[in-house]
Amino acid sequence: MADLNDAETDAGDDRSREAARLAQALANMPALVPGTVVLAGAGPGDPRYLTLAALRALGQADAVVHDALVELALLALIPPRAERHDVGKRGGRPSTSQAEIDGLLVRLAREGKRVVRLKGGDPVVFGRGGEEMIALAAAGVPCLLIPGVTAAFAGLAEAGIPATLRGVNRAVILATGHSLQDGPSALDWEALARLGQPMLFYMALRHLPEIAARLRAGGLPGETPALMMAAVTTQSARYRHTTLDGLADAVDGFQGPAIIAIGEIVAFPKDRGQG
Amino acid sequence: MADLNDAETDAGDDRSREAARLAQALANMPALVPGTVVLAGAGPGDPRYLTLAALRALGQADAVVHDALVELALLALIPPRAERHDVGKRGGRPSTSQAEIDGLLVRLAREGKRVVRLKGGDPVVFGRGGEEMIALAAAGVPCLLIPGVTAAFAGLAEAGIPATLRGVNRAVILATGHSLQDGPSALDWEALARLGQPMLFYMALRHLPEIAARLRAGGLPGETPALMMAAVTTQSARYRHTTLDGLADAVDGFQGPAIIAIGEIVAFPKDRGQG
Repeated sequence: MADLNDAETDAGDDRSREAARLAQALANMPALVPGTVVLAGAGPGDPRYLTLAALRALGQADAVVHDALVELALLALIPPRAERHDVGKRGGRPSTSQAEIDGLLVRLAREGKRVVRLKGGDPVVFGRGGEEMIALAAAGVPCLLIPGVTAAFAGLAEAGIPATLRGVNRAVILATGHSLQDGPSALDWEALARLGQPMLFYMALRHLPEIAARLRAGGLPGETPALMMAAVTTQSARYRHTTLDGLADAVDGFQGPAIIAIGEIVAFPKDRGQG
Repeated sequence: MADLNDAETDAGDDRSREAARLAQALANMPALVPGTVVLAGAGPGDPRYLTLAALRALGQADAVVHDALVELALLALIPPRAERHDVGKRGGRPSTSQAEIDGLLVRLAREGKRVVRLKGGDPVVFGRGGEEMIALAAAGVPCLLIPGVTAAFAGLAEAGIPATLRGVNRAVILATGHSLQDGPSALDWEALARLGQPMLFYMALRHLPEIAARLRAGGLPGETPALMMAAVTTQSARYRHTTLDGLADAVDGFQGPAIIAIGEIVAFPKDRGQG
């Protein structure tokens, strides 16, 4: 216990040691290369969930291109000397088209800048990062990926829910709610329902009643627990517990960006938290 | 371009500014609470993919309990004053049982220590972290989750493969290869095959031929691209491209810890990288 008290009384020392360890960890990382785009995950929102690699990339960037899912607290980590390009939809202003974003990334790279394309969560888990990789490759611009903590798992974690648990599930499915607008065959809803493993839908608010109906029609029980999560890990995070049958009503007044979890695991704290 | 040259000539300044920004980012994070266990994700291996939250938790820890999936470079970030408990399987030494790990975490917390349970990847994505949460809750020990970058997505990213891409897939499935030893009904292999979305299997080497056979029997085409990934993001990372039909042979001599990806998306660099 003496150790503990000592540790508490010199929190300032702890902090400077921490910064020193950190600087050392960062120093060993490869430097950004001019004319290259780094497609980096910003994590789910809270800057605590940024990776060291993404932080380092931001610190070296000559230009940062980010979308609206990236929190202001994160943008504060961008050095003042770097150009910032906000290509997200915010406050009714239309978002920049994907072609315009692609063009911007190529132009900045060709100007010899160290470009960081910062996207919420993981840049290539439903983030359209793959499309940007293709555009950059077509233009001959080198591109590096820095993975990030994806919002679905972080949202569950903050609710104290493990994404997987022995005896409950052996798989977890990440899917986009936009699957429906790509046509009914984009995703086999019956197979999804039959699989019976937890599903985490990104960008699912608009199509939620139809998604729920298709899963129900596929045989997933209406009482399957569901959890609506919005703006996870930020100060405006919102959670709403319901069931598969309750989703169509629960969507009323629920604002995004949202992740919808459907599966037994989301009942975790209630059913299993007490062992 | 002048800006760029300036930036390159004062890399040292850049570094100290970086450390300062970092220290500030860390200072705003909540401190660990004595008697509490933080279940933290170490990310896929490379310390670059550690989150700021996990780094901060390590820096404040009085005791760190880690497994073999955590790289030595990460362990170097643990302050010397902290107790270290290696509960992983390594070099033939048997791993500590789950009950023993649970007991150790409860004991350390009851001694009033700030305990960090560090697990590779995300602690509750096939990490048995959920079981530890249950044990801690049963003992009345508070537990916090810090999500991490999960190995499957990081492995794909390092291979330059996006986990999702419009026109290729609208979902991605994370599953454990241990599903088979839980009995054939633990996972509906036919539904999984029918879904036709990319699958990422954790801990799948031992059962790989049988997994491939079940997916094949379920109707997944034998020529579906597959990618075997081991020790992703570490210096001993290994990749092997094959197909669903080729997996049973490709497993020969391939050492874990491995993630197996099966799905059209893993052909990304070949088929789509040039736009």
